[in-house]
Amino acid sequence: MKKDSGIIGWMAVVAALFVLGFVIGWFAKPTYFNAAGESMPSRKYLREFLDEMKPDKIREHLRKFTRLPHLAGTVENLRYAEQIRDEWQEFGLDSVEIVPYRVLLSYPNKTQPNYISIIDHHGKELFNSSLAEAIPDGYEDVSNIVAPYSAFSARGQPEGDLVYVNYGRTEDFSQLERDMGINVTGKIVIVRYGKIFRGNKVKNAMLTGAKGIIMFSDPADYCAHGVRPYPDGWNLPGGGAQRGNVLNLNGAGDPLTPGYPAKDYTYRFRPEDGVGLPNIPVHPIGYHDAIHLLKNMGGQIPPNNWKGALNVSYRVGPGFTNDFKSQKLRMNIHTYNQITQIYNVIGWIRGALEPDRYVILGGHRDAWVFGGIDPMSGAAVTHETVRSAGRMLRKGWRPRRTIIFASWDAEEFGLLGSTEWAEENAKLLQNRAVAYINADSAIEGMYTLRVDCTPSLHSLVYDLTKQISSPEDGEQEDSLYSSWHKRDNWTNDRDAPRINKLGSGSDFEAYFIRLGIAAGRARYTKNKKTERYSSYPVYHSVYETFEIVEKFYDPDFKRLRAVAQVRGGLVFLLADSQLLPLDVNQYADSLRKYTGSISQLAQRHPQELNKFKVSFDSLFSAVENFTLASRDFMERLHTINREDPLQVRTMNDQLMYLERAFIDPLGLPGRPFYRHVIFAPSSHNKYAGESFPGIYDALFNTENSPDPESAWNEVKRQISIAVFTVDAAAETLLPPA
Amino acid sequence: MKKDSGIIGWMAVVAALFVLGFVIGWFAKPTYFNAAGESMPSRKYLREFLDEMKPDKIREHLRKFTRLPHLAGTVENLRYAEQIRDEWQEFGLDSVEIVPYRVLLSYPNKTQPNYISIIDHHGKELFNSSLAEAIPDGYEDVSNIVAPYSAFSARGQPEGDLVYVNYGRTEDFSQLERDMGINVTGKIVIVRYGKIFRGNKVKNAMLTGAKGIIMFSDPADYCAHGVRPYPDGWNLPGGGAQRGNVLNLNGAGDPLTPGYPAKDYTYRFRPEDGVGLPNIPVHPIGYHDAIHLLKNMGGQIPPNNWKGALNVSYRVGPGFTNDFKSQKLRMNIHTYNQITQIYNVIGWIRGALEPDRYVILGGHRDAWVFGGIDPMSGAAVTHETVRSAGRMLRKGWRPRRTIIFASWDAEEFGLLGSTEWAEENAKLLQNRAVAYINADSAIEGMYTLRVDCTPSLHSLVYDLTKQISSPEDGEQEDSLYSSWHKRDNWTNDRDAPRINKLGSGSDFEAYFIRLGIAAGRARYTKNKKTERYSSYPVYHSVYETFEIVEKFYDPDFKRLRAVAQVRGGLVFLLADSQLLPLDVNQYADSLRKYTGSISQLAQRHPQELNKFKVSFDSLFSAVENFTLASRDFMERLHTINREDPLQVRTMNDQLMYLERAFIDPLGLPGRPFYRHVIFAPSSHNKYAGESFPGIYDALFNTENSPDPESAWNEVKRQISIAVFTVDAAAETLLPPA
Repeated sequence: MKKDSGIIGWMAVVAALFVLGFVIGWFAKPTYFNAAGESMPSRKYLREFLDEMKPDKIREHLRKFTRLPHLAGTVENLRYAEQIRDEWQEFGLDSVEIVPYRVLLSYPNKTQPNYISIIDHHGKELFNSSLAEAIPDGYEDVSNIVAPYSAFSARGQPEGDLVYVNYGRTEDFSQLERDMGINVTGKIVIVRYGKIFRGNKVKNAMLTGAKGIIMFSDPADYCAHGVRPYPDGWNLPGGGAQRGNVLNLNGAGDPLTPGYPAKDYTYRFRPEDGVGLPNIPVHPIGYHDAIHLLKNMGGQIPPNNWKGALNVSYRVGPGFTNDFKSQKLRMNIHTYNQITQIYNVIGWIRGALEPDRYVILGGHRDAWVFGGIDPMSGAAVTHETVRSAGRMLRKGWRPRRTIIFASWDAEEFGLLGSTEWAEENAKLLQNRAVAYINADSAIEGMYTLRVDCTPSLHSLVYDLTKQISSPEDGEQEDSLYSSWHKRDNWTNDRDAPRINKLGSGSDFEAYFIRLGIAAGRARYTKNKKTERYSSYPVYHSVYETFEIVEKFYDPDFKRLRAVAQVRGGLVFLLADSQLLPLDVNQYADSLRKYTGSISQLAQRHPQELNKFKVSFDSLFSAVENFTLASRDFMERLHTINREDPLQVRTMNDQLMYLERAFIDPLGLPGRPFYRHVIFAPSSHNKYAGESFPGIYDALFNTENSPDPESAWNEVKRQISIAVFTVDAAAETLLPPA
Repeated sequence: MKKDSGIIGWMAVVAALFVLGFVIGWFAKPTYFNAAGESMPSRKYLREFLDEMKPDKIREHLRKFTRLPHLAGTVENLRYAEQIRDEWQEFGLDSVEIVPYRVLLSYPNKTQPNYISIIDHHGKELFNSSLAEAIPDGYEDVSNIVAPYSAFSARGQPEGDLVYVNYGRTEDFSQLERDMGINVTGKIVIVRYGKIFRGNKVKNAMLTGAKGIIMFSDPADYCAHGVRPYPDGWNLPGGGAQRGNVLNLNGAGDPLTPGYPAKDYTYRFRPEDGVGLPNIPVHPIGYHDAIHLLKNMGGQIPPNNWKGALNVSYRVGPGFTNDFKSQKLRMNIHTYNQITQIYNVIGWIRGALEPDRYVILGGHRDAWVFGGIDPMSGAAVTHETVRSAGRMLRKGWRPRRTIIFASWDAEEFGLLGSTEWAEENAKLLQNRAVAYINADSAIEGMYTLRVDCTPSLHSLVYDLTKQISSPEDGEQEDSLYSSWHKRDNWTNDRDAPRINKLGSGSDFEAYFIRLGIAAGRARYTKNKKTERYSSYPVYHSVYETFEIVEKFYDPDFKRLRAVAQVRGGLVFLLADSQLLPLDVNQYADSLRKYTGSISQLAQRHPQELNKFKVSFDSLFSAVENFTLASRDFMERLHTINREDPLQVRTMNDQLMYLERAFIDPLGLPGRPFYRHVIFAPSSHNKYAGESFPGIYDALFNTENSPDPESAWNEVKRQISIAVFTVDAAAETLLPPA
């Protein structure tokens, strides 16, 4: 009995020990998900990642990449590509490759310079515009500075009378024709730069029958008050001129291979059939040259808002005043198009858990000349981001998702490098891309942060900027968020820093507007309320040097560091958060706001709305559906079992694909590569992002339409497409079954 | 010492026990994935699911759903929809809903019947075609049998001379014009049914300027040898005629809302702007009526392959012989189009682990009259599949992925119900749909199985049919696979049952050709080598009754059961297998074969290939890339850690999205809704699935092109698109990072 009880006692102890071991073993074993995923101290790594970015390093990168002009298609730009590839490899990316394409570029003829002449009735040249900008100090020995030109201009030497058309906007041309009674057919028009994308000015000139167009930088639009011209300040000197392409691509990428990557095997249109090429000569000049063309112009004195800051009367012409009546203008344009090899650099960090989910940080490398601001301030920031990410990898960090870094080529020629890569990889990106963060110029002013992004990124931008310090002197203790908020509050009824809609004009275009990938961009900017000049004064001139950044824009490189932290931080959190930090409620709020605005715009035509039975009710109701769906979704998101990898993946997929749901595969009318129903540039200005662009353009076209019924039917059709799209997007947020 | 050693001994035992317990505990704990997923005895359930399907039940379903005519848009068809919804609910689906749309349908005018007349020179009607088919026994009291008509015919009463154009194919019309010198402008053409889709005949007639077109069923094409006309056999009686729509939609769905679902809020084109509507009158007749029109025709005697089996000479005209010269033909067509409500029934089984992955089994319900074969043989099979799935759910089974069952409406009017639902849910389907299995007519002959599917389903079809019994008498021990293989071996060099390419003409179209969802269809068929008639003889006539199936096609309903098991089994395995049973190596093999064929076709023009530098080398090399990528992929698939849910999901996503990778968002030339670069109908026959349809059509268009250089450039462009697409599809199979 004793013995038995002893044995039983022992057995009990043995059993208890076994059970204890079993239980501890059971609970000690992490699930797969926790083991490989959530046990990583991701927030700690974020802090380290942000702190690793150093102003001095950014200065170094910028200095290094702005020594030589590196226009797309030149050997210098290939060299920089190779250097970036090599350094990204050294920084520790998993792989880096150079990806080439052969696209249509455009260059001035080296033996026949482009210029504008005033000629007498014998055709003798009385005045010629300058052939080049004065070279800034320290760059005297540099060769291969391309003279100011309009890329993809048609060739030709048209002669004719000059007509001044203000900014060359649709409304400027109609005002000229209707109010001033001037027909520009057969004339050469001169317009000032600013307000809209230059390609739209050229398109408008072509549509009205002009035989050439000259664009100049007026001091009213390219000089800040109380600032001296470069090199003594950061204003545009009188001899400086704005280069730039004058295409109307509407997202097509390489003009000869729309829709497909420009590889060796790719079928190319004949050059004369290329997408968006202008068929008239185009040329840019500075304001010193502009004075010569404008000063003797005759014709009417235009309204005051047509007048710039030059000491001339801004008469519209056509032609010169009586004393100079026999003089005409001649454009001498010899620019030619050429299929040229370009090079993207693509670097990868493989995701640990979801290698098939991509977060992209991309910005261009090609520059018109040195690219001190555009784009190398951005490229330097990206370079520092890659360096910091590489350090983190060496410390053992690896993001949940894959990160792709891109140095695009030939952005200046129509976003070509980024668009061709998007075309080549569309099938992967469509299924796998979580977000695209753009990295063009990181600074265009000295005032505060500027963010343009899709609504679902709003909350993340706010969260992140609260974790970054203000770069402004005397604000060491403030967050970037509060510094930004203080300087640029959204509106009276929304107490938060302003965030803008994405327009176009940089490399996010194919990713956001064609493919429907959530996208955003961030840079340092001017005070929009007080600084009324367009862009920044030296934009696309030879004066965009390293020194202009170092002396004026960001002497201690803290602003660029802050931008690096914003761009890099967004990428980090999108790539490494278990649940994607996308806020669909913000999308609902924005849609409600946009619906209000577009219906307000339509209310300008109450009679027509009534006559043609146009109503926005169904759109408001679709937005209401979306709002309910997004609220439910965000609530479910907070209650899911985060240990269940398939539940997490399902919800993340819904978040990722929401932006995709706004894509209409049929595209906007006449613009097959602009497919985002909520955001696209208006047809009248590529730079301006409009909400509900299809409805917006249709409303625009009702004005002065010869067939109002058709025009208003198109408004109704566009509303119906928007209703369908918003409703269908709401569906994607419901439980999937 | 002794004591110490005892303690140490005890400690060792305790530690050992603990470690033992820990280790056992560790390994005993299942991962999440195994616990919830793979522990389910899925194969056992497959057997039960297949065995549950019963011939007698299929007979019951077919009997029940063929009592009344149920044309799309009629109340009877709504009643059947409600009945199906109710029964699917009773069977145990998680949810069932009726989804309506308002689409353009077409009906004969009830007070003004359609008919064809022979008229004398006063316009007096000498002969009128019959207004209706003789009603089959047992259905005398049935009302609402719609007379034979061509849906969407234009209205009108054109008069003119008759021209006979064989099958009305592109080549028939060119032969008529070039070899026989006959211009059909202003004539009424008569063509026999068969070989190509009737809508293509109508389009060809319109293109050549005919003012009307009559289509007749020739016994050569609609009667089998040695078979008596219905009801004594399954041949078409002389008074039977083939109804059908004559649209050229090219996948647009509702003609008034192309690209968008036809909901209440949707903008509609004006009826005259509808997609694919013919602008000439069209009418179908049987062979008794045809004799009257053909027997006195004059003009040339055509080649023998233009002659059918009627006792007439098949002269081509124009017009009648001398004795009847003054007689003409008049068509009296009063068919009208009307926007009409239609109803899909959609049933859901929620997936247990991946509710956001959809497998769809869909087939139409609307019928021209009773739909004994088309579509109710298919609908009965689907009904039995749903019943069996419901039984399995009650036994505790739940598939890994979501299953969607669909009873489509208005397929006969242009695949409208299925296309509108695809349009409404495109954004969900694009991201979530694994496969679409079509469920139209389940039987068209008594010989063996017929399968048309995407290449990646080939292996699954073979595997599955080995698990299903042959339905043929005397083959009780044989598998369906071996019975099928015996009767229809693929080719001399491929020893397996033949599987065909998907064409169009049924509801899979929007899913496969527009959205790029892997798709397949299966039915019982005739012996293609010996039975040369088109389709099956009573196709789209009033004689498609329950009895024709019960008496002739499948008296014991075992063939339909076998089809149910194939369709249902495919759905089961696609929905419930942990790894998707899609075989990408089969796609590689097929692409290689197709590339060989299309380059062979081009080789018919060796001079042009040389002159215009057309080469298929880059396509062969893209297919080689694809082959290597698919082999690597399948090898990796066998080595992944199946316990890791994210690894499994990643590979499954690659499998699922492969079909999507063949979609070109820009569509085929002039056909924006046909977007599959590998499979689409040729422009000349909607029924025929061509591989590389873009190249195929471009090659076709080089024949007799007025501008050979442009025509061959288009061939090159299409080759380039195919190269890009195959290359990009290969990329989707590589490791994602």
